[in-house]
Amino acid sequence: MPDTFAPPSIPTVPVTPAVLDGLRAIVGDKGLILDEQGKEPFVRDWRGSLVGTAAVVVRPGTTEEVSKVVKLCYQHGIAIVPQGGNTGLMGGATPYPTHSGIVLSLGRMNKVIEVDPVGYSMTVEAGCILQTLQETAASHDRFFPLSLGAQGSCLIGGNLSTNAGGVQVLRYGNARNLVMGLEVVLPNGDVWNGLRSLKKDNTGYDLKHLFMGAEGTLGIITKAVLKLWPAPKDVATAWLAVRDPQAAIEILSEAHAASDDNVGSCELMSRAGTDVVLRHIPGVQDPLKADTNWYLLLEWSSSRPKADGAEGMSEKLEHFLAEQFETGRVRDAVIAQNEAQARNMWTIRESVAPASRAEGGGLSFDISVSTSKVPSFIDKGLKAVLEILPSIRPYPLGHIGDGNIHFSFMSPVGMDRETLRQYAPAITRAVNDLVRDMAGSISAEHGIGVDKIDELAHYRSKIELDTMRSLKRALDPKNIMNPGKILRL
Amino acid sequence: MPDTFAPPSIPTVPVTPAVLDGLRAIVGDKGLILDEQGKEPFVRDWRGSLVGTAAVVVRPGTTEEVSKVVKLCYQHGIAIVPQGGNTGLMGGATPYPTHSGIVLSLGRMNKVIEVDPVGYSMTVEAGCILQTLQETAASHDRFFPLSLGAQGSCLIGGNLSTNAGGVQVLRYGNARNLVMGLEVVLPNGDVWNGLRSLKKDNTGYDLKHLFMGAEGTLGIITKAVLKLWPAPKDVATAWLAVRDPQAAIEILSEAHAASDDNVGSCELMSRAGTDVVLRHIPGVQDPLKADTNWYLLLEWSSSRPKADGAEGMSEKLEHFLAEQFETGRVRDAVIAQNEAQARNMWTIRESVAPASRAEGGGLSFDISVSTSKVPSFIDKGLKAVLEILPSIRPYPLGHIGDGNIHFSFMSPVGMDRETLRQYAPAITRAVNDLVRDMAGSISAEHGIGVDKIDELAHYRSKIELDTMRSLKRALDPKNIMNPGKILRL
Repeated sequence: MPDTFAPPSIPTVPVTPAVLDGLRAIVGDKGLILDEQGKEPFVRDWRGSLVGTAAVVVRPGTTEEVSKVVKLCYQHGIAIVPQGGNTGLMGGATPYPTHSGIVLSLGRMNKVIEVDPVGYSMTVEAGCILQTLQETAASHDRFFPLSLGAQGSCLIGGNLSTNAGGVQVLRYGNARNLVMGLEVVLPNGDVWNGLRSLKKDNTGYDLKHLFMGAEGTLGIITKAVLKLWPAPKDVATAWLAVRDPQAAIEILSEAHAASDDNVGSCELMSRAGTDVVLRHIPGVQDPLKADTNWYLLLEWSSSRPKADGAEGMSEKLEHFLAEQFETGRVRDAVIAQNEAQARNMWTIRESVAPASRAEGGGLSFDISVSTSKVPSFIDKGLKAVLEILPSIRPYPLGHIGDGNIHFSFMSPVGMDRETLRQYAPAITRAVNDLVRDMAGSISAEHGIGVDKIDELAHYRSKIELDTMRSLKRALDPKNIMNPGKILRL
Repeated sequence: MPDTFAPPSIPTVPVTPAVLDGLRAIVGDKGLILDEQGKEPFVRDWRGSLVGTAAVVVRPGTTEEVSKVVKLCYQHGIAIVPQGGNTGLMGGATPYPTHSGIVLSLGRMNKVIEVDPVGYSMTVEAGCILQTLQETAASHDRFFPLSLGAQGSCLIGGNLSTNAGGVQVLRYGNARNLVMGLEVVLPNGDVWNGLRSLKKDNTGYDLKHLFMGAEGTLGIITKAVLKLWPAPKDVATAWLAVRDPQAAIEILSEAHAASDDNVGSCELMSRAGTDVVLRHIPGVQDPLKADTNWYLLLEWSSSRPKADGAEGMSEKLEHFLAEQFETGRVRDAVIAQNEAQARNMWTIRESVAPASRAEGGGLSFDISVSTSKVPSFIDKGLKAVLEILPSIRPYPLGHIGDGNIHFSFMSPVGMDRETLRQYAPAITRAVNDLVRDMAGSISAEHGIGVDKIDELAHYRSKIELDTMRSLKRALDPKNIMNPGKILRL
């Protein structure tokens, strides 16, 4: 994150009493939050590390209201910070301290408009909570695969605006791959109706992919048509002690065929990451101890229910693990025998973030490289960081099948946050230089927001940045839509 | 297609002798085609229905040469028509008769740069023939799923620029879903290096999706990192006589679970479409006769080899078809017992286009609607067209699982092309109005090019068209990159 939460040059047109009256005429009193206490959850990011300000939080109830609000702001040049569940990790949804405009929260637009189980799609408003959508799909015997830590409070509009990742990307792709159509309110207030339930549509430029991942800087996603999949009916979950990350990659490479192409998740864990969860999260069991630092959470799933006597996912996985044990890649393994054991394994994976916060300060980098280069990245990255601060405690983890590692470190025992902070710039530079040298990404799934705006400017070419700026200027000539995020103009 | 091949307003700066010298200095004599006979295959579309012109055909051998050629053209305001294998169906790669600039052919850039079987990726130049890439992947025990009729001569750069579809979209997605990274020469000649082997990369706007589907109007794709999949090892192919399109949709909906999520292809066929193939294509066998007009080519495949005694894809498919027979959806079915029988089924599907050409004139619409609406679309569409011309002979077919139907008609027996042409505008309007009313797409996979430029302008909203124009102007301010395709500025 930047040392100071200092904004680039952004519009500072204030919300006048007349504009406020205009906003009230559009959304009514129930759609406006003016008191400081009410605004507080919308102007502070959930990590508590960034606090900004806003003249007013506007909560429209319909696309038409969003459009009218944006038109009013466009007319006056007032800056808008669109916000979903405010669970982002990069400050993209948090207004700057110098922000003089509005926060536009989508939270009231939370209707599921249509579910089409035969067509495997679902049309929803942007303010639906992710977990609600997972449950809606399940109630129709369908599966909406997007799954991540914040799912109980993040909103689908934010997930799509940030092209969220999570633990099902390996099989189903990022958030952008789960979308057939979008409705977007453009920076001038016009509504682009691209709300099509179409798997194929080659009619000109693909606008929807431009808005996904743009973090609200090109427009406000108000509705989406989401793809659904068959509900999983036969799931096998295993915890593997593996030789090293190279073994993990090779195991995954062979798992595709062995599972009938049904690998769902493949998450790398370390002994240190597991131990920090065991220390801080009550009720968690250690699935197995083994003479290795590396573990793998491997899940296979099929929508075909296991028939009596037939080979199911568990049997296939068991045969596979026996073979992998013979190769020396797997040191030991346990397959969950029931839902509770599977849940325990997932709890370990999902509790690393809160457990490491409980442990104290740390550093984490959301990087990706080509999948086959992950072992080499971990190797070189650990060497580079430990050279700078030998007592730092690494616990790399994450979506190894996507080439996406959360390259994470706990503070050395006894070191306070202020001291660690002095090492942070050198460590960040070392990690990100290595990412660049290995043709990787400095933000695999968390985005840019505010926190990585300087790093993006440092690591991406002028040509790439200029191309992005051209697009921004073309769609948002007044620079009112989440200004100063992703790019400095 | 438009009645006349008349261009919108496009730049008409000529290639002067000085510019020609400049081009020669960049690509050498071997990279220039100046004689009319040599240029002919590059200025005529492969259907033979559009013939344009070009001052010179330029065939660069490297990205650096492409960049220099484009820089030279940019400097002088000379229009460029980028071209792959020239197999497009919408005239997007064909220069206009008033074109005064160059055709830039990628055909010499045909190197496979790297294959990474462990990372499931392959880095290639834009001029590689699609079939070569399929074979390259297979030689590494991997699968590159893009598969379509022109695969023996189309180039991957063109496939990506048009976001090609084909018969594997149901499982693997359109061409854009098969790509991890791109290298693109921008309209000003700058090279955007987005050639990343990354499954996840949330660092600002997703530029690659903007260039895919842009039909060469925003830049020239010069290299790509393609995703690979495990090679299929156990494939079951069946030909089903089905009650009607609604039955086909329901069969597919249940096939996902029954196949362990391994449905590869699901292609709708009709009796009329099959018969036209049997009439014109030698050596093809009719898989089965049944009392229905509707057939389905269904293929399940897994990368897991069938183990002795274990249930393989064929056995699963057989059980499934027996169940579907009980429901009345399937009237009869045959599972291919060997590669030759499977090949015969695929030959029927792939030969519909050449067979219908041999049959004489016709009309075809590449439409998509929400998958669950396909039966209703076929029903209403047939009624509307037969009302205009009762003796026209429909043979709808295609990618029913993608909601994408090639809504095709043979000329009435004995009617000449000129007479049919008089009915074409009314039929086109009826079909496309229905597509619009059902929130579908007037070009599911073939794109816009020249042929559908007026229809796009008619059926898409002003807001959508204006947004596309803003993007075009932002990236190609001099309008030199495939001008007058997709959009009129």
